[in-house]
Formats: sequence, C-alpha cells, structure tokens
Amino acid sequence: MQFLKLFPETHRNLDCLKAASIYVVISKEYAMAGKKVLIVYAHQEPKSMNGSLKNVAVDVFQKQGCSVDISDLYSMNFIAAATRNDITGELCNPQHFRYGAETMEAFKKGVLCEEIIKEQKKVQEADLVIFQFPLYWFSFPAIMKGWIDRVFVQGFAFDFPSIYYNGLLKEKLAILSFTTGGTEEMFSKNGVSGDIRYLLWPMQHGIMHFCGFKVLAPQISYAPEYTGDKERKDMLLSWAKRLETIWEEQPIECTPPWYFQ
Amino acid sequence: MQFLKLFPETHRNLDCLKAASIYVVISKEYAMAGKKVLIVYAHQEPKSMNGSLKNVAVDVFQKQGCSVDISDLYSMNFIAAATRNDITGELCNPQHFRYGAETMEAFKKGVLCEEIIKEQKKVQEADLVIFQFPLYWFSFPAIMKGWIDRVFVQGFAFDFPSIYYNGLLKEKLAILSFTTGGTEEMFSKNGVSGDIRYLLWPMQHGIMHFCGFKVLAPQISYAPEYTGDKERKDMLLSWAKRLETIWEEQPIECTPPWYFQ
Repeated sequence: MQFLKLFPETHRNLDCLKAASIYVVISKEYAMAGKKVLIVYAHQEPKSMNGSLKNVAVDVFQKQGCSVDISDLYSMNFIAAATRNDITGELCNPQHFRYGAETMEAFKKGVLCEEIIKEQKKVQEADLVIFQFPLYWFSFPAIMKGWIDRVFVQGFAFDFPSIYYNGLLKEKLAILSFTTGGTEEMFSKNGVSGDIRYLLWPMQHGIMHFCGFKVLAPQISYAPEYTGDKERKDMLLSWAKRLETIWEEQPIECTPPWYFQ
Repeated sequence: MQFLKLFPETHRNLDCLKAASIYVVISKEYAMAGKKVLIVYAHQEPKSMNGSLKNVAVDVFQKQGCSVDISDLYSMNFIAAATRNDITGELCNPQHFRYGAETMEAFKKGVLCEEIIKEQKKVQEADLVIFQFPLYWFSFPAIMKGWIDRVFVQGFAFDFPSIYYNGLLKEKLAILSFTTGGTEEMFSKNGVSGDIRYLLWPMQHGIMHFCGFKVLAPQISYAPEYTGDKERKDMLLSWAKRLETIWEEQPIECTPPWYFQ
C-alpha cells in the first residue's frame, strides 16, 4: 500500500481503522491538490452576493491546494458580440461572413483574436469550470453569453460528430452557480415562473453537455436581495461546505427527464 | 354598416356575398394599415438567411401599409453588457452597484443612457416586435440578449406585481423568428437536442410573456446552411405568406404544457 510507504511511523502507532480513514483523507487531498479550477464570473459589483460566492470558492479551492483562475468579465471589459474582429487576418469568405465557419477555420489556423485564445487556454487547462452569475431573464447575463458564443468555437469545444457525450471538453466538469431575483417558490413547478430546471435546459444541456462537460447539479442562491443577512450568510456557508467535497460528486444525468419530469 | 356608407355604388352592383367578402378584405387592410412593427435583428451579414428573412418582413409589412422600424444590432454596434454607463448622472448607491435597482430608478427619473431610451421608444410605439436571429447555443446571440437585458428595465417592461398577464407590454405582440444550425430531426422529442420547444421556455415565457407580450408561435427556419437554394427560397416564401395574415393569428397558450408535453 502506498500509504505504508509514505507513513510507516504513523501506521505502527495507529490501529487499522484509523490508518484507513487517514489514508482516505490523505488520498482525497492528493487527488484534489493540483486540480485546476476556472471561475467565469459576471457581476459588476465586487461586494455583491455573486462576488462573495466567487471569493468563497477561491478560498476553499486554494485551501485544497487547487489552482484557481478567474475570468472577471466586467473587469476585463469582455466583448460580448461575435464579430469579424474575432478573426485576425484574412477571412475565408469576406463576401459572405459566416461567424461559425470563419471562427472554426481561424481556430485551426491559430488566428483567432488574442482575447479568445487566452480564454480557450484557461478552459483547456481547467478540470472544473464554474459559471458564477446573477440570472438575467431566465439565462446568463449577455456578457457571459458572449463569452460562451465566442470561446466555445467549433474545433475547440465540439466538432461533428464530437458532441454531447463525445464533446471535446468531455474530461472536464462544469457547474452553474447563480443567484436569482425570484424566490424558490416562484421557481417551483406550480410557481409563476415554473420549475427552475426548465430554464436550465438550454444552459446545461445545450451548452455544457453539448461540449461534453460532465454537469454537476447547479448551486442556486435564491433571491439574496430579498432575504436577511443570516440567510445570505447561510448561502455562502452552504456553497463553501459543498465545495469541500465537490470532487467526489457525480454529475447529473443530463437528459430530458432530469429537467421536465 | 360602415361599408355601405363608404362604397354605396359597389354595393348596388354586387350580390350580398361578394359585398361581404370585399368588406372583410377592406376591414383587414384598414386594421393592418398604420400598425407599427419593430424588428430587432442580429446578424453580421446582410446577405445571410436572417438578413433575407428580415427583408421579407419589411416588404410584406410595407405593402400592408404598416410602418417598420429596425434595430440592426451589429450595425449599431449595440453594447451588450449591462454596466454603470447605462445610468447617466448620479447613482442611488455608488458604494454597492445593483444594476436592476439603479436602472429602475434611472428609468423613473428619465436618466437612462440615450441608447436605451431610444430602444424603449421603439418598443413603446410598436404593436408587434419581431426578434430575427440565428440561434446561438440554444438561445439568443449575446448582442440580442444584451438588448433585452438593457432595454426591458423594471418600470418600463414590467413591475411588481405587473408581470406575466399583467406585464407592462401586454398590449403588444412578440414573435421569435430564428434560424438553427441543427436540423428539425435533431430538435425533435427523440432527437439529440430535444424538442425545440424546450429551449423556447426561457425566451418566450421568461422574457416575452413575463413582460406581458402576447406570444405568437415562433417562425423556425431549420439549418438553412445545410439545405439547397430551393429549400431556402421556400423558407422565405413561407415566412412571407405567414406574415400576410399575421395580424389575425391567436397567441400561443404560454404555459408549461405548450412547452413540455
């Protein structure tokens, strides 16, 4: 056993059960240490709940010995619109611009713009990508949708037939962590806004799962602006607690029944 | 009867049935003429299928005597990100920026930025708003999501409890007209991407219906890039044909069964 080689003294001084449990803990730490996390973060205000949720994640992961990279989209003035400027140099067909076809070719030739290349490198290196954002209109804020539209280029994130379970990012985990304006009751099956899972379909299935990501259950912080300090603190604690064992989580079964039944 | 006063000669020379049918046609034209349409359009290439679908709509509506306004988002370099710049003058709470609260106040005081005010005026005047776009990642392209994030401000498009059937835009019609990358089969109940209606929920229910719009059935042009000229022409013709009687259409029943059953 690896453990015996590493800690022979410890082993001699403990009974088997204790040794085993320490071994598990150490194994976990070894497994976590060195993991890479990318947080794609979209909030204008560092003091916001989203800012705090992002900070909590950075703290927990750093304590685990993971490296954490952050794409702070508003601070970066990240461009949301998908335009010709995303391709440096000549277009394949300047007479009829097709964004998808042109960015796919540009990716192959290595002539995407610097901003996209940089984000793709961060994704490529990450074991886990966390999207931290306030829900805007049942979806991502536009600045984060723009990050997805521009970074997940064909050839990089997917190709044909490399989609869904064969998506090019299939070795990675993804998780949506977001705050809502509406309450949990509004986002229930009989609430005015319907089951929250309904709106997760395009984001989790149509984007994450499409690119191959293994999707972890979302972290939803309901209506922080309408609750008290205690509740907000609890939301942060519950996120911190969950992140301590996030590497052991099983991804969700990303098929229609999870969303609509 | 109004008709008799307008066309006494015609009436004397025709039988009752003919008179009635002409009356219906004329009534329709009177009903359509003067209607106002806003097309929010997001494509980089004028020669694209989306560009053609937009042009077809302009033609048909102008023939009907409607006025048509277009927000051509890429040409306008429309800003997608929701930032402090959307509020001119002083913030209510510059120490802790909350986009929703600040834009609501700014709307009331009339100090939203010029770009937003202009778009809100177009929406206010419109009887029908058409969103014309290529589906990007099961949703709007970011530039169009940004238009929604920034234009549909609380106080303008909705308020509490003025949401859904009481939304502030409840006298208006909305329709999504979009092209897809995937085929109709991929977007079927047993296809890899699931029923197309699943992904319409956040856009139609969470945005349009939330603001009170009466939602017309979407116009979906499947995979124009992978079909022949004949099929693309048919898509344009079918859109043109539908628009001829669009003012008579009944809105969809925007509740979960429409989407998920």
